[in-house]
Order: sequence, then C-alpha cells, then structure tokens
Amino acid sequence: MYQLAMGTRIRRSPYFEATQAEGVTAFSTYNRMYMPTSYGDPEAEYWRLIEGVSMWDVAVERQIELSGPDAGVLAQALIPRMMDRCKVGQGRYVPICDHDGVLINGPIALQLAEARYWLSIADSDLVLWARAIAAERRLDVQVFEAQIAPLAVQGPKAEDVIASLFGDWARDIKLFWFQETEVDGIHLYLARSGWSKQGGFELYLSDPTQGVHLWNLVKEAGAPCGIGPGAPNQSERVESGRRSYGADTDSLSTPFEVRMSRFVDLDAPDDAVGIGALRDIASRGAARHQLGVLLPEGPMLPRYDSWFTLTRDMEVVGKITSAAWSPRLKRNIGMALVSTDCAPGDTAQALLTEGPVDVQFVELPFL
Amino acid sequence: MYQLAMGTRIRRSPYFEATQAEGVTAFSTYNRMYMPTSYGDPEAEYWRLIEGVSMWDVAVERQIELSGPDAGVLAQALIPRMMDRCKVGQGRYVPICDHDGVLINGPIALQLAEARYWLSIADSDLVLWARAIAAERRLDVQVFEAQIAPLAVQGPKAEDVIASLFGDWARDIKLFWFQETEVDGIHLYLARSGWSKQGGFELYLSDPTQGVHLWNLVKEAGAPCGIGPGAPNQSERVESGRRSYGADTDSLSTPFEVRMSRFVDLDAPDDAVGIGALRDIASRGAARHQLGVLLPEGPMLPRYDSWFTLTRDMEVVGKITSAAWSPRLKRNIGMALVSTDCAPGDTAQALLTEGPVDVQFVELPFL
Repeated sequence: MYQLAMGTRIRRSPYFEATQAEGVTAFSTYNRMYMPTSYGDPEAEYWRLIEGVSMWDVAVERQIELSGPDAGVLAQALIPRMMDRCKVGQGRYVPICDHDGVLINGPIALQLAEARYWLSIADSDLVLWARAIAAERRLDVQVFEAQIAPLAVQGPKAEDVIASLFGDWARDIKLFWFQETEVDGIHLYLARSGWSKQGGFELYLSDPTQGVHLWNLVKEAGAPCGIGPGAPNQSERVESGRRSYGADTDSLSTPFEVRMSRFVDLDAPDDAVGIGALRDIASRGAARHQLGVLLPEGPMLPRYDSWFTLTRDMEVVGKITSAAWSPRLKRNIGMALVSTDCAPGDTAQALLTEGPVDVQFVELPFL
Repeated sequence: MYQLAMGTRIRRSPYFEATQAEGVTAFSTYNRMYMPTSYGDPEAEYWRLIEGVSMWDVAVERQIELSGPDAGVLAQALIPRMMDRCKVGQGRYVPICDHDGVLINGPIALQLAEARYWLSIADSDLVLWARAIAAERRLDVQVFEAQIAPLAVQGPKAEDVIASLFGDWARDIKLFWFQETEVDGIHLYLARSGWSKQGGFELYLSDPTQGVHLWNLVKEAGAPCGIGPGAPNQSERVESGRRSYGADTDSLSTPFEVRMSRFVDLDAPDDAVGIGALRDIASRGAARHQLGVLLPEGPMLPRYDSWFTLTRDMEVVGKITSAAWSPRLKRNIGMALVSTDCAPGDTAQALLTEGPVDVQFVELPFL
C-alpha cells in the first residue's frame, strides 16, 4: 500500500470534509479530482451496495456544459447517436469518438434545456475536445466544466431513501431522466443514474459550499435504511460487466469492441465526428470484443493494478483489463478485451505476476 | 495520510518495479499514470537535489507525437510561437492555449525531424486537443501518445553522472536540446531538461521493457556521486518559482498571468490557435499576475492541498496556488495568482484552514 500525495493540482470535492468525517481511508484520482474509494471495510461496503443503500462522493463525474444557440449542433457533432430524439429532462449514455471512431469518453448526455446540455464525463479531458470542435466549426456555443458535484445514492434501498427526502414523486423518475428540485434550500438536479447495476440516484449539487450540508441530509434520511459511505465498487462493477473508460478501453478501442454497438446510430448525421469511420468498422466487423474471464478457483488474489496478457497456443489473444474478487460468486473474475477468435467457453492462459494461470471465457455480465 | 487505490485505469511506469525496489512510499497521479513523489525521507530527497544528484521516474511526462507531412503545420497551429525558428534536435518551452488564449498545457516541444515533433506535456489530455485541431483542419498528420518514458537525472552533479555514462560529449548539450543515442543497447534520446532549476538531463526511453535496466545503469553510474531516488520536489519548485499547470493555473489563466509572456510571439501566424485572443489580452493587459508570498515565520505548516483565498481590506484579491516549506529560507512560502493591484512588498491576509494569517507579496523566484 502506498500513500497518496496531495497537492493543489488535483482538486478536492465539495464533499471532502464529509468523507473525512466518515473515515475515508483511500482515494484514487479521476478527472484530476480526489475520489474516495474506501472507508476501510470493503466487505461491508460491498454488501451495503448489494443489499442495502450506500452513499458516494462522485464529484469527479464532471459536467461539461454546452450552452448557447449552437449547443444542439455541437452535441450532435460530438455524439454518434440521433440527438434529436433526446428530450429536455432526459439523459442518455453515449459514446464519444474521435474522427477514427476510437472511444475518447463515454458520458451520460443530459439535456437541461433546448440549448443546454451536460456531458457527465468519464476520465478524460472532454472539455478540450468539445471546445476544439466548437471553435474550429465556428459554432456559437460556450463549452466549460460546470461547478456541479454529484452525490450518488446506490443500492436496492436507494429509492426509499430518495423518496423520504424528496417525496414519492421521485419514484417515478425513469432511468437517466432527471428533475430540477431542491431540498432544505439546496438547489440540485435529481437523476436516476449511477455507477452500479444495483439501482439508485445521483444528486447534482450546484453550490459547492453546500456539500457537507447535502451529505448530512442524505445520511440522516438514509439512517432508517442503514445507509453508509461507499464508492464505485470494483467487485460489483466487474460482476455487472460495467466497463470503465481507460481501464477496459485502450487507445484503439471502438464502441463495437466494448459492447456499446447499441449506443451508436449509424444513421447519425454525416457531420457527427467519427460517424464515417464507425460505419466502416461496423461493416467490416471489429477485430476484438469484450468477454468475462473466470480465474482459477481459490482464495482472493491481490487486487490487480495492471493489464495482464492473455495467450492461447503461445499467441497473444488479448488482455485482462479489470479483475476483482466476487463475493457473490466466491471466486476471482475479470473483464477481457480479446480477439473475436475467442468465444465464451474457450480457455486461455493469463500471465499474472504470480505466474501463468488457466482462465475460461464467459459472457458478460456475470451477474 | 490516505492510501492510494490502484487499478488499471491509471497506468504504471516502465520504472515501476525499480521504484518499488528503491522503497517508494508515495505517489500522485499525472496524465493518468502513477508518479512517485517520495521515498520516505523528504529532507534527504531535497538536499540530494540541491547539492548532489537525484534520479526520478517521470514517465508521466507523456510525449504527444505529431508526425507526417503536415506535422509542422499542426505544430504551428497549436503553438503561439514562431515554430520555423525551431531546429531539429531542439526543444522549446511553449504555451498551448485554446481559442480564447487560455492555457491548456505548457509542454516542451521537441523537433525530432523535419516532419516529426513531440510535445512533452503537462497534466492535461493534449492529445485530444491536437487530434481535434488536426482532423477539423484536415491536416495530413498522425497524432498519438508515443510510448516514451522519461527518466530524469537532476542536481548540480547530474552532468558528471551523465558524462560518465554517455561520454563527455553530453556536457555540450544545450538547454532543451537533445541527442538520439544509446547506452548498453538501450535506444533513447538524451535531453538537457527537467522539472527543477538545479540543472540536469532527461533520458527519453523508447522501449518500456528496458525501464529497470536503464534505471540500474543510471544508479550505478551515479553511485560515486551519491545518487539516490527522488521526485519533482515541491519545496524546490516553489523556491524556484516554477509553475505547475493545473496547480498554479486555473480555467481562466492566460500565459501573461503566469510569467510566460516571453514564450508568446504576437507575430505568430494568424491561424495559430488563440493568437488573436492573445494579441487582444496583450494590448489591454492581464487582470492578474503571479507573485510569491511569504507566510508567517514559524514551524513548517502542513502541506497545503487546496487553494487558499487571499484578501485585502475584506476584498478577495486572489489565491495561494502552491505552498511549501523552504529548507533554505527556513520558512513557509507560496506562489499566488493575484490582482495586478497587488505588488511586491504589499501585504494581504491568507485564509488558511488554521485561520487567517498575514502574508507579504514578493517577486518570484525566491531562489
């Protein structure tokens, strides 16, 4: 275990003091912000997410705002989906690709108003990309990182907590849709969204001085349901087959490789960045795809922090991109990016630090 | 102190195992890679840099390569300096700005060949920016992150170490110039460069499998000079007034605010991104500038990890962007971004976590 060096280059969340008070023990960084990853009891944090309700500082989900007369034109230029089918109040999971069709982010795009969008981004500087496209196309639009800090409430009891805090109307919010609202004088957008498959909501806080206040309101409302602190959970994420941009994608990954084909509209307008390349790739087929891997049965392996090569008959066929212990499956599992020659049921060798081990490919998700 | 959570989203350096063997204790992240920041003895690491020689894993300095027929056109489009004055084998410190003249990175631009450049970047995804500009302008150029891992040798005895390893010819390399060479079969570029004011070199390794080998060669060559491991040093950096992109700049900073005016050529071509905005800002003058701050005398304060507001007569005049204990000045010092109404000699109040304290502005650098 290494210490995290802290400095001004990487930013603090508005919930930072609240997470300190909860006993946060570990952080990663994401979009140049500190992201809590553990409160010292991984087992409890996992089961709270799976069976109860957990609250997470995910202020690192930065919102890239597009606003102004050409905001819709820019959104459509950036996103290879038909954006005219998106409605105000709706969010959609979208791939963002470069001109070669390579994934450079995978945000939720939220339409706030006729000419105002947020891209709730994964870990890359999409603001630079969007600003370059806007300026080079001479669009009349502002592109900036909005000072918005999401707080996630995740798990099967999340809806009860949110309903007790905001009212039963919140139960009717559909997946990825959102509603502008307030609680105890704190302005926010309430969205059904989150970095887990266990269901839940995200509270998009707009006043950073209210972070601790909002945290404590959610904590109080969640107390009857046994709410506690948590973070995006590696075990749950791999079990659920949820890709993490930058971990499960590399500098060549297209949406088709990582099970995002259904989020690409090949009939998107010709001036959507990358659409031509995506049509070509779709017609000839991707060379790699994403599968699950079952690691050998046995005790929990160390947390993997680098990609591991996969071979078959001495030839490299791909790599394990994320791995974790699954408390529900009681074994080590992973996600892999491999040649389309590899199919579920096939076996391969994984070159782990501890030595080579046999693995089996399976369909994703595991659970 | 918090633990660093590690995973596949943030990448390891080719020197990772070597730094483990040296006893690395802390990391930050930079360009989505783990960057060693301490080996557990900050005092020794500081004095080794100031009086001896130190070796650093700075693989996080990623090289964005521009290559192909239009590489020079793209370099000039990205950089508001006259790039036709740059020569093959030469590096230059350059600001990179968006279309509004706001700094988005501050790399060293190295010209490797007539139509091949590296931008040795600070901590932002310049590859996305450069790729967007290139594609939207339909330039015939490849833009990608090259698999290059710099190893820095810094301090007054660095030249002796490098000369003993490569030969006395290396003593003639001028600041920011570089030479393609090899050592013990390892191909690399040797540059006089580095993240300190104490002088030194950077070894740009191109084969990541040779990281530990190269580390050990440098360690052995440096043994007679007492070389030891280190990292970019916050105390030395603040004493030397060296800005860190993202720490000492914010989302509004232009080159003129942070003492980079001499790196902008206002007569750069009209199609250089941001040049029009930079000419406007230059003619009306920047609203903020960068000064040093002397914090009250007394013991070493905790390492600051967030910006602190500066006020004068109850009005906000700016913020302390970096702070550190200076072992040579034996006091706490900082760098500040403040209104141009503030001048060296003036005093202000800094709203630290511990409470407000009086500070005095001074010229940068301190040493």
